[in-house]
Amino acid sequence: MNTAETPVLADYCIDVARRARAASMALGLLGTEVKNRWLVKSVEFLVERSEKVLAANQRDLANAPGYGLDSAAIDRLRLTDARIADIASALRQIASLPDPVGEVIDGNRRPNGLEITKVRVPLGVVFFIYESRPNVTADAAAICIKSGNAVILRGGKEAIHSSQAIIECLQEAAEATGLPQDSVQFIETTDRDAVGHLLKLDQFIDVAIPRGGEGLIRRVTNEARMPVIKHFDGNCHIFVDQQANFEMALRIIENSKCQRMGVCNALESLLVHRKIANEFLPELNAKLASYPIELRGCENTRRIIPTAKAATEEDWGKEYLGPILSVMVVDSLDEAIEHINRYGSKHTDAIITNDLAASRRFTASIDSAAVVVNASTRFNDGGEFGFGAEIGISTDKFHARGPCGLRELTTYKYIVQGDGQIRT
Amino acid sequence: MNTAETPVLADYCIDVARRARAASMALGLLGTEVKNRWLVKSVEFLVERSEKVLAANQRDLANAPGYGLDSAAIDRLRLTDARIADIASALRQIASLPDPVGEVIDGNRRPNGLEITKVRVPLGVVFFIYESRPNVTADAAAICIKSGNAVILRGGKEAIHSSQAIIECLQEAAEATGLPQDSVQFIETTDRDAVGHLLKLDQFIDVAIPRGGEGLIRRVTNEARMPVIKHFDGNCHIFVDQQANFEMALRIIENSKCQRMGVCNALESLLVHRKIANEFLPELNAKLASYPIELRGCENTRRIIPTAKAATEEDWGKEYLGPILSVMVVDSLDEAIEHINRYGSKHTDAIITNDLAASRRFTASIDSAAVVVNASTRFNDGGEFGFGAEIGISTDKFHARGPCGLRELTTYKYIVQGDGQIRT
Repeated sequence: MNTAETPVLADYCIDVARRARAASMALGLLGTEVKNRWLVKSVEFLVERSEKVLAANQRDLANAPGYGLDSAAIDRLRLTDARIADIASALRQIASLPDPVGEVIDGNRRPNGLEITKVRVPLGVVFFIYESRPNVTADAAAICIKSGNAVILRGGKEAIHSSQAIIECLQEAAEATGLPQDSVQFIETTDRDAVGHLLKLDQFIDVAIPRGGEGLIRRVTNEARMPVIKHFDGNCHIFVDQQANFEMALRIIENSKCQRMGVCNALESLLVHRKIANEFLPELNAKLASYPIELRGCENTRRIIPTAKAATEEDWGKEYLGPILSVMVVDSLDEAIEHINRYGSKHTDAIITNDLAASRRFTASIDSAAVVVNASTRFNDGGEFGFGAEIGISTDKFHARGPCGLRELTTYKYIVQGDGQIRT
Repeated sequence: MNTAETPVLADYCIDVARRARAASMALGLLGTEVKNRWLVKSVEFLVERSEKVLAANQRDLANAPGYGLDSAAIDRLRLTDARIADIASALRQIASLPDPVGEVIDGNRRPNGLEITKVRVPLGVVFFIYESRPNVTADAAAICIKSGNAVILRGGKEAIHSSQAIIECLQEAAEATGLPQDSVQFIETTDRDAVGHLLKLDQFIDVAIPRGGEGLIRRVTNEARMPVIKHFDGNCHIFVDQQANFEMALRIIENSKCQRMGVCNALESLLVHRKIANEFLPELNAKLASYPIELRGCENTRRIIPTAKAATEEDWGKEYLGPILSVMVVDSLDEAIEHINRYGSKHTDAIITNDLAASRRFTASIDSAAVVVNASTRFNDGGEFGFGAEIGISTDKFHARGPCGLRELTTYKYIVQGDGQIRT
């Protein structure tokens, strides 16, 4: 980038962030009705102007080969009438969710008569950085606004025209319904340095949320001066215990691994108790035969499934996001727990067992956002948890862990009410 | 420091952090009884060995002039039988508090029969960095352990012998009661670089908590790779509204400013509604006459109290921690709100009023950890809020805001229980 432009870009970023902060102060005081009215009006505008949005999307699709997008990425980029209807339906769904702002979380009256209330309030300003899926533009904006936060959106250059067309609908809906101006802002430049500038502005921005590949997330985490809600990867495990129902185990493994391979809650590594390995692994191999899945096993696995490739140390820590599954035979529940806590991503890990003690020990000992018993790892998801909407999944322990919906974009403050109390 | 020692120090820090992580895995599974038994045994040892602890404290007191400690700092450093009794009583109090670990925060059954429970679990490993008050050593360790966290303590060099003597009691109590070894570790070296090394070890340490002067807190915040619970300062305000009861306002201001001047929730800046300023400010001046307090006022204040010095722009943002009070006459409630949100520390801000609408507007609009109506700012405190124990006060919005007790040192995980559910 031309160095003469740097101050201009920095100034632009400061201006955007400052305006977001101002909008957030007004937004935090806004009633639920205005926010919902904005959501409904946004849906109206999106549907009314779908031709314009689709035309903008055509421009992005035409540019896609130039960005080297593969067919899967191009498919994610593509908008259709059906996909616009999906966006509209997501926004309507968010309108129907309860407003988290103002919820009284806790409270008590102190012996001196002071009344202390812990009340849920918005975080303030969210900086949301995402890659090429244009539907995320509307979805993320809706979640941020419904939870009372102003949002600065930075979408991928591959979807810039689509995102801008969607943002226009959201911003005009804001004007039409009295949502504070600058509640939803979109970074117009595709200059990568804009992200760097914004990540420094912790006096205006309360949280950064990156969604995309690990490279993006590492960059944001390294550069951000404000807290970040994120997960790097999802190296999710299933442990098939000695008292597992085989039919159930096979069904859950198939679903966890094969229903959608490229997502963070898909199965990546299977652990099998030594006592059942001889019997179970051939059945697993047969079950997965209809899928193009490569097994990478430990020595014991390969004795039982000779077609499995040899797993290396690196495999145990790896999120494949594709048709590979690492398989290890373990001597005990404790070995499984230790392995998962060592190599896992603290994302989603499951046990298949009918042994109550083993289940209790597993759920207590596994240090992950979601610990699953006798169900698919794919259930670690805001929608499946009943949150109604999700802006991401966190594998951190600080602030929010697991799926992040409306509540996870809030904080609280204490209101202390008295009638003249002083401290003695 | 000798550069040849650096790898040794780094290795020492990694070893400490790694052992803390291992201890934390065991600690998280521990029943409440063991933790409480450890607290009671620690009290026993502290009281039994109080002569040894006092002798160690004498060594620190003898060294204090060499460290340039002033008389207030020396007083904070000093241990007496009474102060050891206070430590013991604090530890007993923490033993009596409910265990936050295992609390079911939320839960529901999904339409597909999955049962989802959100369960409170420890953060893991706490790195606590504090200055010269030796009583903090026992207090912080007790809060961390009771909430299921392993703790690495780094105390100031001024109190090193006292802290070591206290730590010995806590560690031997661990051995005697079956608390995992390395649950409580103390950094034995006074080398400042040890802090820097530990702040990089985010793979082992979940949160850093600095307590002390702003310099320490800035350093920790800048260097830490893990999240930090902290507040930089407490520029706390009181706004005296036009419908304030003068007697109540004067009593609350006196208490907020004068009860203890050097603490973060003490009053630093007073805003007075223009309509009552002529009447109220002279009464304030009379009320504070018996204290050696310097008033620094805006022009209007100085017209009414001519002895007040002129406040500069810098004064509005300043935490004095001493006998100075800045005073501004404001035209309206809105001006007061805007001023506080601009110059305050998001710590504690109060309104004195009998106007319900003004009170509601103030509590909704002020973006601070605690917003107080008709009571002293000094009440923003874990003890006063009924937490029973406090490891610090946070002015951040992320994770924990306001006083941080046992719960604020925890996170949660989701337990998902099914009977074979897969996602479709």
